[in-house]
Amino acid sequence: MENENCILRLSRYKNSLLKLRHLGLTRVFSENLADAAGVTAAQVRKDFSILGIRGNRRGGYQVDQLIGQIREILGKDKVHNFVLVGTGNLGKALLRYPGFEKSGIKILASFDIDSVKMEGQTNIPILPLEELDGYIQKKQIQFGIISVPDFAAQQVCQIMIRAGIKGILNFAPIRLQVPEDCVIRNINLETELENIIYFVNAANKEGKQP
Amino acid sequence: MENENCILRLSRYKNSLLKLRHLGLTRVFSENLADAAGVTAAQVRKDFSILGIRGNRRGGYQVDQLIGQIREILGKDKVHNFVLVGTGNLGKALLRYPGFEKSGIKILASFDIDSVKMEGQTNIPILPLEELDGYIQKKQIQFGIISVPDFAAQQVCQIMIRAGIKGILNFAPIRLQVPEDCVIRNINLETELENIIYFVNAANKEGKQP
Repeated sequence: MENENCILRLSRYKNSLLKLRHLGLTRVFSENLADAAGVTAAQVRKDFSILGIRGNRRGGYQVDQLIGQIREILGKDKVHNFVLVGTGNLGKALLRYPGFEKSGIKILASFDIDSVKMEGQTNIPILPLEELDGYIQKKQIQFGIISVPDFAAQQVCQIMIRAGIKGILNFAPIRLQVPEDCVIRNINLETELENIIYFVNAANKEGKQP
Repeated sequence: MENENCILRLSRYKNSLLKLRHLGLTRVFSENLADAAGVTAAQVRKDFSILGIRGNRRGGYQVDQLIGQIREILGKDKVHNFVLVGTGNLGKALLRYPGFEKSGIKILASFDIDSVKMEGQTNIPILPLEELDGYIQKKQIQFGIISVPDFAAQQVCQIMIRAGIKGILNFAPIRLQVPEDCVIRNINLETELENIIYFVNAANKEGKQP
């Protein structure tokens, strides 16, 4: 879990570095990154130390070098191929999401039970679900995104894993069963909104107390 | 943080309960919910105890009653109104997301700088950005969703907060500055995928070691 948070911060450092480089900076200090990422400078140095990233003797890091090192750690020095299953509204939005490409994320193909109806709606090919298994195996794809309704998600997940997928981002509001060697992350939109509602309501109640 | 995880689990219990009720169950035990939500039975009992939910003397909970109690805690006994800003692909997908309604989440209106172009594309009205401030105040809306590009997000956030928004779900890949009494949650799609890539790559490397 600690490790996982470290990676989330690394991703923030990298985004901040890209912006700082865009502003013309060639070197940064842990304090700069701390401010940009909303953590303490000690945290930045600790994260870098854990990951074997060293600054210069007089402190500070070369921006270009640091971006390269973080990209390597995040596996972003190369392109990673994904398949997406479930080409509804959310799936289509993901196919058109502009931020993936610069992060080395490429959705090679999308799959849907209604693929025929959707022909030509996106630049990325939409294929019938029956071809999912063969496609993953042929292209040796390791990463998948699930954006099907909850009742279909476990079955899609099983097809993916059987075919060789090792990492899944799941948008279906259901807890998927995956083997231990498969990485799964869930984004549950309802739960996120429910959380916000809960905490705002809690704060409202607190504010009303004498 | 502990509290936050408790709410995430509550949401899972509630979803499991709805499915169990659909199967005809009228009472459940902490063990049933533990299995369905992927936690221990002790954790279920601890969560309920913290929140003041009590079982019967002989153990077990009435399904209907429990759903009602969790809904109340999650603030789902009434409808919560949202505004959405940024009606691009992702924003449109959110406007059409089928899961919100049954969770008491209602997006009243959507806003965009290009609202005129989008007229009639969705059932929910798409209004010009200049009307955001007045709309929030007039309808006394407390909740907002931001799905604009990163460069526009902070400005939208400020308009929302000035107008009275207290809780924000942010999809823009940027850390927004909000006052302390505002609840913010971020969904960063790139970071989620980067995490998956990182952990799969790490596992691949480990597997290859002798």
